[in-house]
Amino acid sequence: MKMEKIPVPGWSTAVSDVGFHKILIRGYPLADLIRNLTYTEVVYLTIRGELPSEAHRRVFDAVLCGIVDHGFFAPTPLASHVIASATPESIMPAVAGAVLTVGSVTVSPQDTAELILEAWKIKEKERLSVEETAVKVVDEMTAQKKRVPGLGHPLHPTGDPRAIALKEVAQKQGVWGERARLYEAIHRVFVEKTGKDLPINIDGMMGCILTEMGFEPKEMAGIGALSYMPGIIAHAVEETRERVRLRAADGEYTGQPRRELPPSYRRA
Amino acid sequence: MKMEKIPVPGWSTAVSDVGFHKILIRGYPLADLIRNLTYTEVVYLTIRGELPSEAHRRVFDAVLCGIVDHGFFAPTPLASHVIASATPESIMPAVAGAVLTVGSVTVSPQDTAELILEAWKIKEKERLSVEETAVKVVDEMTAQKKRVPGLGHPLHPTGDPRAIALKEVAQKQGVWGERARLYEAIHRVFVEKTGKDLPINIDGMMGCILTEMGFEPKEMAGIGALSYMPGIIAHAVEETRERVRLRAADGEYTGQPRRELPPSYRRA
Amino acid sequence: MKMEKIPVPGWSTAVSDVGFHKILIRGYPLADLIRNLTYTEVVYLTIRGELPSEAHRRVFDAVLCGIVDHGFFAPTPLASHVIASATPESIMPAVAGAVLTVGSVTVSPQDTAELILEAWKIKEKERLSVEETAVKVVDEMTAQKKRVPGLGHPLHPTGDPRAIALKEVAQKQGVWGERARLYEAIHRVFVEKTGKDLPINIDGMMGCILTEMGFEPKEMAGIGALSYMPGIIAHAVEETRERVRLRAADGEYTGQPRRELPPSYRRA
Amino acid sequence: MKMEKIPVPGWSTAVSDVGFHKILIRGYPLADLIRNLTYTEVVYLTIRGELPSEAHRRVFDAVLCGIVDHGFFAPTPLASHVIASATPESIMPAVAGAVLTVGSVTVSPQDTAELILEAWKIKEKERLSVEETAVKVVDEMTAQKKRVPGLGHPLHPTGDPRAIALKEVAQKQGVWGERARLYEAIHRVFVEKTGKDLPINIDGMMGCILTEMGFEPKEMAGIGALSYMPGIIAHAVEETRERVRLRAADGEYTGQPRRELPPSYRRA
Repeated sequence: MKMEKIPVPGWSTAVSDVGFHKILIRGYPLADLIRNLTYTEVVYLTIRGELPSEAHRRVFDAVLCGIVDHGFFAPTPLASHVIASATPESIMPAVAGAVLTVGSVTVSPQDTAELILEAWKIKEKERLSVEETAVKVVDEMTAQKKRVPGLGHPLHPTGDPRAIALKEVAQKQGVWGERARLYEAIHRVFVEKTGKDLPINIDGMMGCILTEMGFEPKEMAGIGALSYMPGIIAHAVEETRERVRLRAADGEYTGQPRRELPPSYRRA
Repeated sequence: MKMEKIPVPGWSTAVSDVGFHKILIRGYPLADLIRNLTYTEVVYLTIRGELPSEAHRRVFDAVLCGIVDHGFFAPTPLASHVIASATPESIMPAVAGAVLTVGSVTVSPQDTAELILEAWKIKEKERLSVEETAVKVVDEMTAQKKRVPGLGHPLHPTGDPRAIALKEVAQKQGVWGERARLYEAIHRVFVEKTGKDLPINIDGMMGCILTEMGFEPKEMAGIGALSYMPGIIAHAVEETRERVRLRAADGEYTGQPRRELPPSYRRA
Repeated sequence: MKMEKIPVPGWSTAVSDVGFHKILIRGYPLADLIRNLTYTEVVYLTIRGELPSEAHRRVFDAVLCGIVDHGFFAPTPLASHVIASATPESIMPAVAGAVLTVGSVTVSPQDTAELILEAWKIKEKERLSVEETAVKVVDEMTAQKKRVPGLGHPLHPTGDPRAIALKEVAQKQGVWGERARLYEAIHRVFVEKTGKDLPINIDGMMGCILTEMGFEPKEMAGIGALSYMPGIIAHAVEETRERVRLRAADGEYTGQPRRELPPSYRRA
Repeated sequence: MKMEKIPVPGWSTAVSDVGFHKILIRGYPLADLIRNLTYTEVVYLTIRGELPSEAHRRVFDAVLCGIVDHGFFAPTPLASHVIASATPESIMPAVAGAVLTVGSVTVSPQDTAELILEAWKIKEKERLSVEETAVKVVDEMTAQKKRVPGLGHPLHPTGDPRAIALKEVAQKQGVWGERARLYEAIHRVFVEKTGKDLPINIDGMMGCILTEMGFEPKEMAGIGALSYMPGIIAHAVEETRERVRLRAADGEYTGQPRRELPPSYRRA
């Protein structure tokens, strides 16, 4: 029997051109970026492919400052402490482990962005107004018992100060258009329909503004991670500095009382 | 038998104070940071505990722009592509996996910083000049066949353009003192002793300058990760966008030829 | 303003009771397990809470042997090699990174199990026969363009030898009941409706049999990971043994040609 | 300037031969392994390259059952709970994050094995007896203030029941030779010299016995991870089942009191 061959795709990238004596990021020599740009501009360039305008640069700085840290009110810093306690020689395992605390409970700006783009498609296809689209979307989501992403925060029941500050910066820079207004309308209709007065939280606002700026939803999870990376690093270093013991917890055992192996399993 | 109790340490942090209606980062309300600061300043504040001076802000921007991406000439972007090909619904596993590619081969600014601080201790304790310390350190390291961290790069045998640009920015801002000169002396003595004309690479230069700025070695691995995080994110998104297949490779099998289980292992 | 307190849940577990002079796994002293049981029995006990019957033990061994390794035809071993090339001092980062290659493309037994349990609910609720349920489920899934999990494999277009062997062991041990037959019916109806003659693959068969055995879908992703863990470990060790270089790839650059920073971005 | 090309190594493996209609693990058809072997035998085969003898199979089962779970007295299960609380849709991020809790504090069988092999080299090179080697090694380690790996456990100050059971199984199967006796001698000399009556813990005993069996140190970290993988999986599933909230902790803030941004940083 002849063994057929499976075609294996090659590696390709448009991010950087790296070789002998050469490092171009999106076409620009990296040494020029180091000499001239801010980190925020380089993050924008690397992910988007083009340099930001001055307004986009300012708003992107505010977005990247949006989360920073959660204290102990989120799994992220806890994971950072727990893992760093075991690996004080390097914080990298803690950083990697903490990055993994993004899931269906924590959500990320990605979820809000996907909702906005989905709603936008409906608006365009069915030629609805922003308001009509919002009503339609909220009706469907509540009917299907789907959670509207980006709303509510247990610590900030009357308004997330981060989302408020971020919106202010974006509006001041003119980065607030139809897509942002659509998400605001969805929020407003949600509050009216359900009677739940949940404010837009920082994940929602980041997803809303990054969508306005033209980022893709998948990129936003990475941008969100960048935003709380300083906190992850600071917590991990703190743990390695103060502790020589492993993290343990004072937990409760709720399982089976002590028991003996049944005779048929005793083989020693 | 009485069960003794093991004392379990509580959780404490100086990074942030988070609670009802409250998010302070190193004492500052996060909303004020969003409204006023750049991301670079907030990263510095969160990790260091205090705001940067204007000179430190400028140099820290350059440090954070120091790596950005490796094309396909490092395991980091490869890990990002490989993992993202399996999880296109979210780039977070790829980000976490790519962050793990920091080890004894890749090194990080941490290694260089640890060397400089160790050399500095010897200098102070034995009241040596910078030059004498460098000779002593290189002699010991070569005798013990230890690798001097931060030197050489296969793609940049005659000089790492990133390190050159970074040094330029640091010197222009006056962030270049005794510790940086000590590392330069170690480099110079190394080249003279061994005859290997290896330039200081970007990891070495980042470790050198971050030490000058007062960062701790452990923090530097995190700062290094921040520096190549934009590349990780961009590669992961790129993979999810272009591919619907899993990554596979055209590898060679070098193991045992096909064989049958010995009779004593056939039990079916 | 009075700071209210957020209630934080305590830690509790039914897995093990660990303290001074005490390690009970699901109630049994761990030392007794070491002396008497096989690893397969202990994995079953730890995850399920009870010891396996002889038939379940035999089938669970076969399930755990179901995947083992993918050669280079999956992201998992590639991730193992790539990360281990950077961290030859320890294979743990490679193991962690390789474990992350489970997503919507690779799927896992969890997906098949969730389908079976969902279909079972419909069957019970609507009092349908196995055949009627299968028709209904496949009709709905094809109408919604949903992929039926557990079917097809690019390397084994005419039948996955692992799935065939696993089914054989399960049937021989009498671990093949209504739920397994329901999945077989879904498979059969799928082939008839779509004309695509995709065989049940190993993920599908594992999900099918583990559902028969009473495991929960979420547990199955972990059991699947155990199954290919030997391969991950072997690849990582192999990489650290043979290589002193970092993994790189011969990739193609598809991005922007070299360009200069626009004047407004030149600030040095 | 001519761009030189960097040679990129190809992919090769001796673990498995996978292709169209073919999956051989170390030469054996995987379907035959599923039909005939236990998981323990397949783990041994995949990592070592050859099938275990009956004695090795029995001892390897005991080794794999050596740890299983730590309750809440280690970072591993805590990491599993913390990450799973954020990603209840899949336990894989929790598994990956928990695997990362292996470092210089927790150690692993790898450290003990490296010590034994190092001591063995000294013994052979200097033609010392087991006893003389032990004295030399302990003298050097205590002089350099190095920790002897594999000794002591806070919960089992008078003897680790897991290590005791494991040694019993190994001795019964005749898997207890010169290398194991060398480690025992090192332990004995350590207790005599330092007056610290620390027992050999489970990591030490696993490293000792796996060395006797011929495993390499690097493989042992992976085998150790397999051993506590059932606990990681069980804790992660437990968390996803019981909780709908994210893990948070009742921590203490020890940092700066609230402060205002200095005027030069107020730019809004």
